[in-house]
Amino acid sequence: MGLWFTEKQTDNFGITMKVNQTLHTEQTEFQKLDMVETEEWGNMLLLDGMVMTSVKDEFVYHEMVAHVPLFTHPNPENILVVGGGDGGVIREVLKHPSVKKATLVDIDGKVIEYSKKFLPEIAGKLDDPRVEVKVADGFMHIAESENEYDVIMVDSTEPVGPAVNLFTRGFYAGISKALKEDGIFVAQSDNPWFKADLIRNVQKDVKEIFPITRLYIANIPTYPSGMWAFTIGSKKHDPLEVSEDRFHDIETKYYTKELHKAAFVLPKFVGDLVK
Amino acid sequence: MGLWFTEKQTDNFGITMKVNQTLHTEQTEFQKLDMVETEEWGNMLLLDGMVMTSVKDEFVYHEMVAHVPLFTHPNPENILVVGGGDGGVIREVLKHPSVKKATLVDIDGKVIEYSKKFLPEIAGKLDDPRVEVKVADGFMHIAESENEYDVIMVDSTEPVGPAVNLFTRGFYAGISKALKEDGIFVAQSDNPWFKADLIRNVQKDVKEIFPITRLYIANIPTYPSGMWAFTIGSKKHDPLEVSEDRFHDIETKYYTKELHKAAFVLPKFVGDLVK
Amino acid sequence: MGLWFTEKQTDNFGITMKVNQTLHTEQTEFQKLDMVETEEWGNMLLLDGMVMTSVKDEFVYHEMVAHVPLFTHPNPENILVVGGGDGGVIREVLKHPSVKKATLVDIDGKVIEYSKKFLPEIAGKLDDPRVEVKVADGFMHIAESENEYDVIMVDSTEPVGPAVNLFTRGFYAGISKALKEDGIFVAQSDNPWFKADLIRNVQKDVKEIFPITRLYIANIPTYPSGMWAFTIGSKKHDPLEVSEDRFHDIETKYYTKELHKAAFVLPKFVGDLVK
Amino acid sequence: MGLWFTEKQTDNFGITMKVNQTLHTEQTEFQKLDMVETEEWGNMLLLDGMVMTSVKDEFVYHEMVAHVPLFTHPNPENILVVGGGDGGVIREVLKHPSVKKATLVDIDGKVIEYSKKFLPEIAGKLDDPRVEVKVADGFMHIAESENEYDVIMVDSTEPVGPAVNLFTRGFYAGISKALKEDGIFVAQSDNPWFKADLIRNVQKDVKEIFPITRLYIANIPTYPSGMWAFTIGSKKHDPLEVSEDRFHDIETKYYTKELHKAAFVLPKFVGDLVK
Repeated sequence: MGLWFTEKQTDNFGITMKVNQTLHTEQTEFQKLDMVETEEWGNMLLLDGMVMTSVKDEFVYHEMVAHVPLFTHPNPENILVVGGGDGGVIREVLKHPSVKKATLVDIDGKVIEYSKKFLPEIAGKLDDPRVEVKVADGFMHIAESENEYDVIMVDSTEPVGPAVNLFTRGFYAGISKALKEDGIFVAQSDNPWFKADLIRNVQKDVKEIFPITRLYIANIPTYPSGMWAFTIGSKKHDPLEVSEDRFHDIETKYYTKELHKAAFVLPKFVGDLVK
Repeated sequence: MGLWFTEKQTDNFGITMKVNQTLHTEQTEFQKLDMVETEEWGNMLLLDGMVMTSVKDEFVYHEMVAHVPLFTHPNPENILVVGGGDGGVIREVLKHPSVKKATLVDIDGKVIEYSKKFLPEIAGKLDDPRVEVKVADGFMHIAESENEYDVIMVDSTEPVGPAVNLFTRGFYAGISKALKEDGIFVAQSDNPWFKADLIRNVQKDVKEIFPITRLYIANIPTYPSGMWAFTIGSKKHDPLEVSEDRFHDIETKYYTKELHKAAFVLPKFVGDLVK
Repeated sequence: MGLWFTEKQTDNFGITMKVNQTLHTEQTEFQKLDMVETEEWGNMLLLDGMVMTSVKDEFVYHEMVAHVPLFTHPNPENILVVGGGDGGVIREVLKHPSVKKATLVDIDGKVIEYSKKFLPEIAGKLDDPRVEVKVADGFMHIAESENEYDVIMVDSTEPVGPAVNLFTRGFYAGISKALKEDGIFVAQSDNPWFKADLIRNVQKDVKEIFPITRLYIANIPTYPSGMWAFTIGSKKHDPLEVSEDRFHDIETKYYTKELHKAAFVLPKFVGDLVK
Repeated sequence: MGLWFTEKQTDNFGITMKVNQTLHTEQTEFQKLDMVETEEWGNMLLLDGMVMTSVKDEFVYHEMVAHVPLFTHPNPENILVVGGGDGGVIREVLKHPSVKKATLVDIDGKVIEYSKKFLPEIAGKLDDPRVEVKVADGFMHIAESENEYDVIMVDSTEPVGPAVNLFTRGFYAGISKALKEDGIFVAQSDNPWFKADLIRNVQKDVKEIFPITRLYIANIPTYPSGMWAFTIGSKKHDPLEVSEDRFHDIETKYYTKELHKAAFVLPKFVGDLVK
């Protein structure tokens, strides 16, 4: 046996994994931050005891957050990432040559600092000249922005702790204002097995503000149930109607242009949540 | 804390869940059988310490094993299920009105017996008049059958213990012989995250025997990684080319006719396994 | 891995053991009762998720609760056991030929019922003609008794749940009243490593009522820290001054007449608790 | 939940504790060394996944190894500690004013190095001028010594890995040769619950070489079963016959002169092992 980290994903179910060593552990101003070296998944970031990202499976989340909205928008130039201090979404965003500027706003500078140190494969592009990193409250940043971004990506923790404001109708209204007239946003939306109500509520809230609202899914083995959901709200462009010539080659391990569409084909019980 | 069941899905990773009580535990002639009542997933069948099926998420596996090949075949009448003693696949098979006979061959009668007792929602259709249940070695049953079945479904345990023969090239050759000339078979094929080699090998073996070989996936939260793969080998009918009018309404919670096709759209790293 | 029961003995420390099967699990009127078959300790009784007794190590607790006060008293005839529904203390009490009557008062009849069924080695003497079993509140039974018992043994659970009254000064005063003029009582008093304050408080309370107050210890591997404490309050007879000819042979696995005295020789940090 | 270290003390039983962080982890030339910060026990040294010592309960082991033989010997001047690289036994040895020299021989210099760094309360006396620290094979050191030491203390790991030679008859013969004519040695001897055979064998071997052979016990909550055994072999002085005026005041938390004798009064099933 030895040293194992267990995340109780619900009161009665969880995942457990062998830990070789802790690399850093700290109570930041906002949350408990642990960087651990796991045997199965490589280095892993935990916030408040929940798996955020790991070297081995991070590509799924980061590719699927970034490329679905970026290929949906015809010419994404100015991008905002709220949360995402590990830098994985930024790394994917920069694969799109149309992008001129990518702003990362994470409330917790420690996440950025220790991701750079212990997750260089993920955070390595945070120093790119097109990237601006701000340690600030994403909710406030959104509130102060107007008609500015082509794509906004909400890469938040669960709706407990510092991220609680990022799951409110007011936040989605702010996002709409912060987006340009053909803007699009995506937000991670937890999983349909254990958080059906959350998904339903987010869909309902977003639908009231955005004419095009969609849900898509991806398989992330270290996240609860292995099936993760993402909500898209879009003012004009529909992710289901991207023309073939919009796609261009990028290096990925999960995303493909075929999967771009297939990810929106939901299992029946998931589809029922968003009707 | 209390009583928790942990399945180490790899040497260094696993799932853990609260158990209210054990309902039955027995070393059968073939394997360790445990029926447990879990708080999160309801009653659950374990074989050799591995999760086989649970009341709450069994629908994914059983629907996806059954309906993909059954809707691919234009007129499935005679069906064979190898393994699957819990009865879940049979239950789904019987939803197809074309089916005249469904034979279940499981090597371990105890699995059938205790599934009927503790998993009635799953095993309840094993007494249907169209069903014949045989407690026998599936490998031998296949070897003795010729030009008999429209669809064969291999619902086996992992390739350790009693199921080891069910992952051999000889077995696939036997299946081909047992199928009619336009027959089709499906086999559960573990997961792409931890068992990439197994998937690659099964694909290679099946491709040598069946002109049409495909891989599709589904999300099963209690199985390793949450992403489960299924291999199809078909003599004539391609699961990707089912005409719209072949589908008819059946009651499902996971399968839809849209998902029938989307399930074959693989994440890039999975698609790379089957090239 | 498989099925393991873990008792968190403190918030940050505990024991964990392999469970073959649950034999019975029930929320009784008073507490959660689990009877489990463990691989290491044999059948085991859990109340509210805490180990009460196991077939393999029960002899320590039961012998040490019973024989220390019984050999201290010169002629114990009428004995009361409060709690102890598993019957282990009663079994030891009956080894003393002077005993004419032993009354067991446990508030939870289910503990008695399932101990008889699943712990026959422990509970087997509850049907002895000298034994009276009452399902009743021990606190009330004590309050209604006067000048009646030679020895009272308090074999309670922790001071949470149904046993909370059994750790109060009022209870010790009641015990004094219920005892004859040379009576003696013993109570399990948890462990010095994690519950120093409890031991200190019990000693202080008992000292105010009984002229002779002592603490002794025994090693119980399935109890927190492995070192368990017992408090003695005595009106007249000192357990440290038992004459050699008082002892007689009884069959034991832990208690000896030499250990009778050595058990009162406390490690320094434990002795400091009772000064 | 979070990060927990579990030591399986047997195949089916163990302890589990919350770990705040790992301080150092290394595969040394001889064993896996982990220094962890636990919430319950403070900093803790693990070798090959087994608890060696912790800040909170180390005093029991170190006091009981050192003071029992040192107070038994009338004038211990030259002391050898085999193993014990954490320095705890040395710290206790130096509390005896008669001691002129204490030699520590541990095979693994890394244990010494990281104990100094992370367990300063324990290892802090290794730099005392009376102490000589040698990184060498204790078995060889013993083999090369003759008529040299008053007291030898064997503070080894379990008889697996580097310590396997320290549980052999040849080693005890070497100790006898290395001791002066009235020398005495003590060795940790595991626990009577899970390792009865080991205790029996050690006793048998030592009895063949030393005229006075004794077993004593102490309660160590982080060691298997909470009851730990120590074997004494002595050429002349009997630990049970120390005169009152031999004792002098030393600062301890577990050992007392009364406990010196009481520690040899064994529970019946333990006493039966050494008959």
